Amino acid sequence: MTDNFSDAVMDVERTEKVPRKAPEAIRQVVMANRILSNEGILDALGHVSVRNPANPGTFVQARSISPFEVTPNDILEIDLDGDVVTKTAMRPYGERFIHGAILKARPEMNAVFHGHFSAIIPFSVTNTLIRPITHVGGFLYQGVPIYDDYEPGDGMLIRTKHEGERIARHLGQHRVHLLRGHGCNIVAEDLLRLVASAIHLRDNATIQWQALLSGREAKYLSTEEAKAAMEIALFDASPIQRMWGYWGAKVKRSMPDMKDWK
Amino acid sequence: MTDNFSDAVMDVERTEKVPRKAPEAIRQVVMANRILSNEGILDALGHVSVRNPANPGTFVQARSISPFEVTPNDILEIDLDGDVVTKTAMRPYGERFIHGAILKARPEMNAVFHGHFSAIIPFSVTNTLIRPITHVGGFLYQGVPIYDDYEPGDGMLIRTKHEGERIARHLGQHRVHLLRGHGCNIVAEDLLRLVASAIHLRDNATIQWQALLSGREAKYLSTEEAKAAMEIALFDASPIQRMWGYWGAKVKRSMPDMKDWK
Amino acid sequence: MTDNFSDAVMDVERTEKVPRKAPEAIRQVVMANRILSNEGILDALGHVSVRNPANPGTFVQARSISPFEVTPNDILEIDLDGDVVTKTAMRPYGERFIHGAILKARPEMNAVFHGHFSAIIPFSVTNTLIRPITHVGGFLYQGVPIYDDYEPGDGMLIRTKHEGERIARHLGQHRVHLLRGHGCNIVAEDLLRLVASAIHLRDNATIQWQALLSGREAKYLSTEEAKAAMEIALFDASPIQRMWGYWGAKVKRSMPDMKDWK
Amino acid sequence: MTDNFSDAVMDVERTEKVPRKAPEAIRQVVMANRILSNEGILDALGHVSVRNPANPGTFVQARSISPFEVTPNDILEIDLDGDVVTKTAMRPYGERFIHGAILKARPEMNAVFHGHFSAIIPFSVTNTLIRPITHVGGFLYQGVPIYDDYEPGDGMLIRTKHEGERIARHLGQHRVHLLRGHGCNIVAEDLLRLVASAIHLRDNATIQWQALLSGREAKYLSTEEAKAAMEIALFDASPIQRMWGYWGAKVKRSMPDMKDWK
Repeated sequence: MTDNFSDAVMDVERTEKVPRKAPEAIRQVVMANRILSNEGILDALGHVSVRNPANPGTFVQARSISPFEVTPNDILEIDLDGDVVTKTAMRPYGERFIHGAILKARPEMNAVFHGHFSAIIPFSVTNTLIRPITHVGGFLYQGVPIYDDYEPGDGMLIRTKHEGERIARHLGQHRVHLLRGHGCNIVAEDLLRLVASAIHLRDNATIQWQALLSGREAKYLSTEEAKAAMEIALFDASPIQRMWGYWGAKVKRSMPDMKDWK
Repeated sequence: MTDNFSDAVMDVERTEKVPRKAPEAIRQVVMANRILSNEGILDALGHVSVRNPANPGTFVQARSISPFEVTPNDILEIDLDGDVVTKTAMRPYGERFIHGAILKARPEMNAVFHGHFSAIIPFSVTNTLIRPITHVGGFLYQGVPIYDDYEPGDGMLIRTKHEGERIARHLGQHRVHLLRGHGCNIVAEDLLRLVASAIHLRDNATIQWQALLSGREAKYLSTEEAKAAMEIALFDASPIQRMWGYWGAKVKRSMPDMKDWK
Repeated sequence: MTDNFSDAVMDVERTEKVPRKAPEAIRQVVMANRILSNEGILDALGHVSVRNPANPGTFVQARSISPFEVTPNDILEIDLDGDVVTKTAMRPYGERFIHGAILKARPEMNAVFHGHFSAIIPFSVTNTLIRPITHVGGFLYQGVPIYDDYEPGDGMLIRTKHEGERIARHLGQHRVHLLRGHGCNIVAEDLLRLVASAIHLRDNATIQWQALLSGREAKYLSTEEAKAAMEIALFDASPIQRMWGYWGAKVKRSMPDMKDWK
Repeated sequence: MTDNFSDAVMDVERTEKVPRKAPEAIRQVVMANRILSNEGILDALGHVSVRNPANPGTFVQARSISPFEVTPNDILEIDLDGDVVTKTAMRPYGERFIHGAILKARPEMNAVFHGHFSAIIPFSVTNTLIRPITHVGGFLYQGVPIYDDYEPGDGMLIRTKHEGERIARHLGQHRVHLLRGHGCNIVAEDLLRLVASAIHLRDNATIQWQALLSGREAKYLSTEEAKAAMEIALFDASPIQRMWGYWGAKVKRSMPDMKDWK
C-alpha cells in the first residue's frame, strides 16, 4: 500500500480480465463483494467498504456496479464526507454517505456493510428486536435498534451527508442496526469480521423468525454466553480464517473469472 | 429498427447458435426472458412482451416456448388484437391476448409481464392485498387488486380477446394486479422497469407474507415514501441500470449459450 | 419398439458414456428420471415407471439406482406382479410392487410415480386434504386421499405384491394419494403428464400450506374450474410440450452427461 | 490400511491436485465431508470423524478447514483424548473433544458428526422434542434430548476434554442430541449411516416444524414403525448404497476437483 492510496488505486493493472495485481485492501474488498454476492447476502443494490489503511480519512468502495461484478478496476477512493478522491468519471453509489459517516463516528472500526437481505426486513417492519438465539449470533448482544427517521422525499434511501450523520448517531456503539422497510448497516474491525457478521446476522434472523412463528417461548443467549461466543467467532484466529477460506473457495468455484484468484 | 418490424424480425440471422445480430427490441426481450427465468420468476408457462418501437399497434413476444430457451429466432410480431403478423408457422402463446389488450388500454406503457411465481398466489386466494412493505416495493403504492371474473370453461386462463379486454379494464391505471389462483399481470414503461417490477413484487410479497404469518402489526410505506421510493428505484438512471447489468451478468454466467452475448 | 421388449432393453448400446440409441420408451423414462431429479422432486429414493408399449403386462423402470444417475443401461422390464423379466443380475427397487399393482388396476393409465418430496408430508401427517388452489393443481379435483394401512414391520414401505394391491385399491380412480408419513403415488396417461403432475402437486401443496398457515380462509378452485384447468394443462398439446421441453432443456444444461441428448 | 495408521496418513500421495491414492477410511471421510457440504448440511464450521479401523483408540478427521475443501492431504489422526497423533504442524478443530469422548463412550459406534444446520436450532431453543414424523426419520425413535449444560465462558462451544465427556454422558445411548442454540451431535456405525442420519435429521426436522406451525395435531411414527423404518433405511444394503451413490454422484458433478474421484 503506497502512501498515496489514489495512486495505488490507479496502479491497478487494467486489462480485460480480472487484474491479479492490486493493493491488498483493494483485493480484499473485491473478494468481500464476491463472497456477499455468492452467499446471497447482496444482490444488485447493497455495498461494502473498507477504510484506506494508508489514510484513515478515506475509504475504498466499488463504483455503482453490482457486488457480483466488482473487480479491482471498479474500486474508488472516497473521503468521509462522501466526495470521490479518485480522479475518474466512474460513478459512486448514491448511499456512500452511510459508509463515510459511520467510519467517521467509529474510529476503532474499519469496514461497513449496507444491504437488504430479506431475512431481516420482517423484524424492521414489525418492530421486533433481533437478539442472539444461536452462538454465531453472539455479536448481536448489544441489541439491534431500528432506524425510522428518514429524510422525507428521499424514498427511504440515505442520500445526503446530513442523513448519513443521523444514521451514524442512531447506530451509536452498536455493531448492527436495521432501517425500517429497507435493510441494515453493519460495522466491524475489518472485512473478514464484517462479512462474517452479515452472514451470521442473516442466519440468526432466519432462526429467530422461525422460533417466533411457532409462538413458543425461546431461550436466547445470556449476555455472558453471547459475549464469549462473539469473542471466539470473530476474534479467535481459527474460525474466522476457516470461514473466509470457505467462502472464498466457493467464490472461486462458482465465479469463472475468479477461478485463479490467489 | 426498420420501419417494417416484421422484416426486422425476419432479418434475424438464423443459425444453430444464438444469433448475435438482431434489432435492439428483440435483443432486449430475449434478455428479459432469460433474466426472468434465471431469477426464478418465470418457469415454462409465463411470458413477457414489448411494444414494437416502430409501430405502436404491434408487440414483440416469443413463440410458445419457455423463457429459459428463448432466442432471437423465436420472436414473433403480434398485433394488439392477438393476431400474429410475422409470416411463420411458429405457434404463439395462448394467453397473448393479455398483452395486446393491456398495451391497447395503456398507450403510455410499453411492456407487459404475465407469470405465476408462488409468492403471490397465497395473497390472491385469501383476498389479501399486497402493499409496499419494503422500499423496492414502492411502485405498488396504487394497490394490487385481485381479478376473479374468469370466463367459465377456460380453466382460469385468458384465452380470448374479449377476456383480455376485461383483464385490461380490471387492471385500470394500476401497475400490477393478481389473478385469483393463477398469477399476476404487470405493466411498465419498458422492459427494464418491467423486469425490476416483477422481481421486486416477488420480494415484497415474500416479506409481507412473513410479517403477516407472525400476527404482528406491520408498518407499511406511506404513500409519500412509496412514491419517492418508486421514483428512485425505477426512474433514476443508476439503480435500474445497475440491476439490469447484474441480472444480465448472472444470465451470462449461468446460461452457456448466452456467455458471449453483448 | 420391437415386439419383444426384453430384447429391446438388451439392445441398448452399452458403453461407458450414456447410450444415445435406445427404444423411445426407454429414452423417455430416462429423461423423466433426470427431470424429476433436476427439479428437486426425487432424491435417491423415489422412482417412476412406464408401461411397456409393446406389452401392457409389463413396465419399464430403472434398477435400484438414484434417478439422478439413470441411463438407458439401467432400465429393467418388470411384470405387473413385480417379477423382473429382463435377464440380468441388476437389482430392482424394493417398492416396484406399487407400480405393478397400480398399472394392473388402471388399464387406461401408463405411468406411475412414487416419491417423498417434503411439501406433501405435512398434509399426510395432519390429515389435511390437498385441494386445487392454483390452476396447475386442477388435476387434483377428485381429491387426494391419505393411505394409512401399512403392513406391520415393513417400516411404512410397500414391499409386497399384497400391499401393492391394497395401495392400488386405496388409490381407486384418483390420480394421486398420499402415504402417511412417507410420500405419494401418482398415476397418469404417460410420462409427460406424470412429470407435470408431480411438479404441480408440489407447487399446489406448497401454496396451499402457506395459505393454511395464515389462518385465513382460502378460495379453492371450483370443480368446473379445476376440470377445465386440468384439461388445458395436461391435454392441450401446447402447454405440456412447452413444459417438457423446458424441463428437458434444464437437464441438458445442468447434467453434463445429458448435454448432447437428442 | 497398515497397522500404523499415522504412517498410512503420511503415505497420502501429496500433490497439488487431490490425491487419488489413500487408505479407504481416509477416502471415505473425505467423501463424507464433501457430501455434507454439497447437501447444505455443513458450512465452514461443522466436522465429521471416523474411528481408525486399525486402532480403535484413535480417529480420523480433517484439520481446521471447511468440509467443502477437505482432501486426503488434510486428514489428521487424533486419539480419544483429543491429542493429535499425526506428526504435523496442521491445526485440528477446536471441538475435536466431542468426537473423542463420544467414540470412547460408544465402542459399538465408529463415526461422529457435529454441525449447526438451521432446521434443528428452533427445536433446541424452544425446548421442542424432535420425533420421527417421516419414515426416513425412524432412526430418531429413542428421542433427541437437548443439551444445555455449557461450560461458562466457552461461548457455547465444546473445547475441553472435560466438557466432551459431559456431552458424551448426555448423549448416552441416543443416536442424536441437540445443543441448545448451537447445533447437534450424531453418532453412527459408520460414515454411510452417519451421513444418512444427518440428512434425514434435517428433513424430519423441517417437516416436523411445518406441521407444528400449522397448530394441527400430527401423527408421529409409532415406536414399531420407527424401528422397522430405521432397520430398512440404515441397515438394508440397497437403500444406503443407493443414497451414498447418489450423494457422491452429485459431489462429482458439482465439485470440479472431485470429478474423477473413484
